[in-house]
Amino acid sequence: MPYFDAASAAPLHAVARQALLASLDEGWADPARLYREGRRARLLLDAAREAAAEAVGCRPDELSFTPSGTRAVHLGVAGALAGRRRSGRHLIVSAVEHSSVLHSAEAHEAAGGTVTRVAVDRTGRVDPSAYTAALRPDTALACLQSANHEVGTEQPVAEVAGACRAAGVPLLVDAAQSLGWGPVEGDWSLLTASAHKWGGPSGVGLLVVRKGVRFAPQGPVDERESGRSAGFENIPAIVAAAASLRAVRAEAAEEARRLRELTERIRARVPALVPDVEVVGDPERRLPGIVTFSCLYVDGETLLHELDRAGFSVSSGSSCTSSTLTPSHVLRAMGVLSEGNVRVSLPPGTPAEDVERFLGVLPEAVAAVREKLGAPAAGPAAAVREDDVLVVDAVGRRCPIPVIELAKAIGEVPVGSTVRVLADDEAARLDIPAWCEMRGQEYAGEEPADRGRAYLVRRLS
Amino acid sequence: MPYFDAASAAPLHAVARQALLASLDEGWADPARLYREGRRARLLLDAAREAAAEAVGCRPDELSFTPSGTRAVHLGVAGALAGRRRSGRHLIVSAVEHSSVLHSAEAHEAAGGTVTRVAVDRTGRVDPSAYTAALRPDTALACLQSANHEVGTEQPVAEVAGACRAAGVPLLVDAAQSLGWGPVEGDWSLLTASAHKWGGPSGVGLLVVRKGVRFAPQGPVDERESGRSAGFENIPAIVAAAASLRAVRAEAAEEARRLRELTERIRARVPALVPDVEVVGDPERRLPGIVTFSCLYVDGETLLHELDRAGFSVSSGSSCTSSTLTPSHVLRAMGVLSEGNVRVSLPPGTPAEDVERFLGVLPEAVAAVREKLGAPAAGPAAAVREDDVLVVDAVGRRCPIPVIELAKAIGEVPVGSTVRVLADDEAARLDIPAWCEMRGQEYAGEEPADRGRAYLVRRLS
Repeated sequence: MPYFDAASAAPLHAVARQALLASLDEGWADPARLYREGRRARLLLDAAREAAAEAVGCRPDELSFTPSGTRAVHLGVAGALAGRRRSGRHLIVSAVEHSSVLHSAEAHEAAGGTVTRVAVDRTGRVDPSAYTAALRPDTALACLQSANHEVGTEQPVAEVAGACRAAGVPLLVDAAQSLGWGPVEGDWSLLTASAHKWGGPSGVGLLVVRKGVRFAPQGPVDERESGRSAGFENIPAIVAAAASLRAVRAEAAEEARRLRELTERIRARVPALVPDVEVVGDPERRLPGIVTFSCLYVDGETLLHELDRAGFSVSSGSSCTSSTLTPSHVLRAMGVLSEGNVRVSLPPGTPAEDVERFLGVLPEAVAAVREKLGAPAAGPAAAVREDDVLVVDAVGRRCPIPVIELAKAIGEVPVGSTVRVLADDEAARLDIPAWCEMRGQEYAGEEPADRGRAYLVRRLS
Repeated sequence: MPYFDAASAAPLHAVARQALLASLDEGWADPARLYREGRRARLLLDAAREAAAEAVGCRPDELSFTPSGTRAVHLGVAGALAGRRRSGRHLIVSAVEHSSVLHSAEAHEAAGGTVTRVAVDRTGRVDPSAYTAALRPDTALACLQSANHEVGTEQPVAEVAGACRAAGVPLLVDAAQSLGWGPVEGDWSLLTASAHKWGGPSGVGLLVVRKGVRFAPQGPVDERESGRSAGFENIPAIVAAAASLRAVRAEAAEEARRLRELTERIRARVPALVPDVEVVGDPERRLPGIVTFSCLYVDGETLLHELDRAGFSVSSGSSCTSSTLTPSHVLRAMGVLSEGNVRVSLPPGTPAEDVERFLGVLPEAVAAVREKLGAPAAGPAAAVREDDVLVVDAVGRRCPIPVIELAKAIGEVPVGSTVRVLADDEAARLDIPAWCEMRGQEYAGEEPADRGRAYLVRRLS
């Protein structure tokens, strides 16, 4: 049963499992204690720190273990902002950072700080000069992911790090998705990562703070991990995390080549196999194992269920799979279609046959969802002609129904005429313009309506 | 090689190990995902939450898993204070809480809040009426441990909880040391605990917030664990923690009886076997496995090394073992001797023979340390007679030297005369009065001196 969601969590690497088992008996005691069990735990912790630091490319005393990648980000952002409070309270993030970074930014705003969110292009990449232009005299910290977790696009970290260094601003790199593949290039100041993304166990993150970076840990004092991450260290998990980082690095070059070829197959063949699909993310500057595409007229959650029934575990940035009913902030920032979104992220070792089987079942899975949604049982939306405008009332209908009804209606008006779609699903704001771009129709903007919003589309062809 | 420091961290319980191994393959995926690996992880997490809630005596939706007991305390105190911000900013703690509670209180003070630290008696117990008297109209939160981690004394939690409830103030109980032995009695509002204290793995704490308690999680938003503890859940460790809590509870009544008998042996026999020893903590209302005593004229760190060489792993609250060079805040609050302090905390299953062997090696270990410290190589402190006062200059000498020199000097002055000890070791402030109490001499107070502090002792006998 192929698991294609390594970007969420990778299964435990065999080396991590061995290291975890071996250190359960040796690493449970308090490493701050003077007796032999404590000394043994300390030795394991020190060795794991050295191994992790070597893989990151930093000094061991610059690296603290945290209970998760999310905690590493929260601690790193808060500590760096507080350490540079005298310089100012301005924070820069990209619009496509992981939610842990964006939520840290929101907390900073709520506490009176200011935040600039740097836009990305349609591939999800920030423009280094646009990022650099956001630097201000009062900028305390800048954050940029090494690569995006939803679409795999790599960010120009080294260039941005250089510009930040020149401006005297520390750059925090969230390397959660890339650290298993290799060290982060460039002259960054802080780095965060998460072990369960590289086959380590849950419960271990990394926070690296380069010597010389002003850093003031927030929250109650605690002596563990250089005062940067409170609470008893989870040494068996830390040992396993460090061991599996070394292991995946040893296999990284070969595995990257292999997975890149497999994701390239998906990128190339999905648009041919499935009509009305948009493959998103940078086709070249991307992580080896991630490929993301969106399917018009498809409800992402239903498609995930179809694929799960067919034996494939994938993820989605579609609004319909999220409890908040808002589409992925990443897809929104990229301005690409979010409906029917599927992220395939292959764990190392994925056999080519599994990818071929996936490509085999995908067209039918998408067709099945489209048939369900287009079936008369779902009931057509009311389309009423008012003057020369065709009004499609999709208020109260969730994605992808508004776009499906738009697609049906556009054929009923002459070229040059307008279709007015009334909708209150948040995803419509993203998906109707994306549909227009895919279909070569003109998106003429949105306006308030008595019920929901009105989205205007002029038929061009 | 007997390990007698279960109050720091207990070795992994056999049941915890089994549960951990079993769930490594089932519990690594993201429990928020819809595919089968995610659903399996969610089932494990839900079952562990139900089991832990049953052991605590709360509803599953009141219980969040955190990465450690320390984090549970930090999150619980901050969230409860913020949730009751409108009621006021006054916090009550006992003087003998775990450092995670006291450091949370310091952080609250630094942020402009006020804190009352309720004193304890010489057994380490708070007086319920004194605690209750600290309640004020602006009290937002009160914190009381179920039992003390250094001396094992049980606190009157149920009485204090009742008084807090009557005053409309939530009580947070740090149950880290007691939860393995049984649920916390009384009408408390919040509870925290730490799995590695009951034989669970590192990396798991509990935070329980009763329905109806105002609680506002602090820090960046995160959807995990009801928004109360950020970061990816460590499900295999959580499963193991819940399993071992059930397992130790099943053995608790029998094991408590057995360990209590063993610690009673230590309490009774150490003072007979070793001269100049003070056994501290409540003799009756105490945890089954903890016994703590202090040895006059002994350096705690050196004694720990002696005992470690003899094969016994114990802990100490003496200043000399701590990197900060201040004696245990618990012993200080109790007003008991801190020098040569030894905490024995027996893990479940400790055989009686190990305790007998410990009692066999202890007298020689203490004697060896005393011989080292009293040897001429250490050099006598300068004792100069000024008028009718004998001045002992122990400035620059670390504990227990000031007390050793005091003990030597007291014999050189007539009854009624005074010895003036100059010292700059923080422990002297605690240990000189404690020595006077043990020896029936009069402690006449301290005063500033040109170098360090001067401690005045009048010979009574």
